[in-house]
Amino acid sequence: MNPYTIFADIIAGRAPASVVYDDPDVLAFLDIRPVTPGHLLVVPKVVARNLAELDPALGGKLFQVGQRLAAALRSSEVGCDGVNFFLADGVTAGQEVFHVHLHVIPRTPGDGFGLRARATSPPRADLDYLAGSIRGALTRG
Amino acid sequence: MNPYTIFADIIAGRAPASVVYDDPDVLAFLDIRPVTPGHLLVVPKVVARNLAELDPALGGKLFQVGQRLAAALRSSEVGCDGVNFFLADGVTAGQEVFHVHLHVIPRTPGDGFGLRARATSPPRADLDYLAGSIRGALTRG
Repeated sequence: MNPYTIFADIIAGRAPASVVYDDPDVLAFLDIRPVTPGHLLVVPKVVARNLAELDPALGGKLFQVGQRLAAALRSSEVGCDGVNFFLADGVTAGQEVFHVHLHVIPRTPGDGFGLRARATSPPRADLDYLAGSIRGALTRG
Repeated sequence: MNPYTIFADIIAGRAPASVVYDDPDVLAFLDIRPVTPGHLLVVPKVVARNLAELDPALGGKLFQVGQRLAAALRSSEVGCDGVNFFLADGVTAGQEVFHVHLHVIPRTPGDGFGLRARATSPPRADLDYLAGSIRGALTRG
């Protein structure tokens, strides 16, 4: 099995998975390397290596399935007082399997999971400058 | 301004924001406490304190706007080689503003942002047991 395309093998039934949700467009299953017990991955069945290749209709479905799974986690036997969604798009963002996947991570107090982040407080002028650049890119896109 | 409801003030125009995207359902703007330059928040205009209160149609739109913003960040002046999506649902998950918000975080090498996580490798039987419990909760939900 190629670790970079393992989700395609799972979707095709060639690799094992502990499936929690299955519809014609989306599959969700337990991550085999969970950061907390019950850590789920939600994937489109059609191959999309990254967000740019993902049909927005399918992107919307990933989030909606994530919402349903978040509710299910909270009422299942998995310990779950909160939920994080996480997605990595690109190697620099930590993407390791090149098939879009939304992480749905159940949280309990003291579970050790979290963000490693240093927040800053830039002046409004700097925020406005970046906002203008991003709006310009949206308009061109 | 109440920090727990600041996004409602931004949506109503009572609080400042560096807006990048605005449609009848969704607003996106720069986080004033960015973890990397260009860190965005995507919010529904209708109040939803958490994922359970969020209309799934709006949830899908948040993801789709996130996809468009990820593409815009990559072609803007913001340094961006990758993108993370992050969402916190519940205090235990790190939620601080009680209005659903999707973080869209542009990434560059060495930017210092990441996950604090200890992945484990549980036996398949444990994964299958949790999967069964989650499937049961989905069916009941």
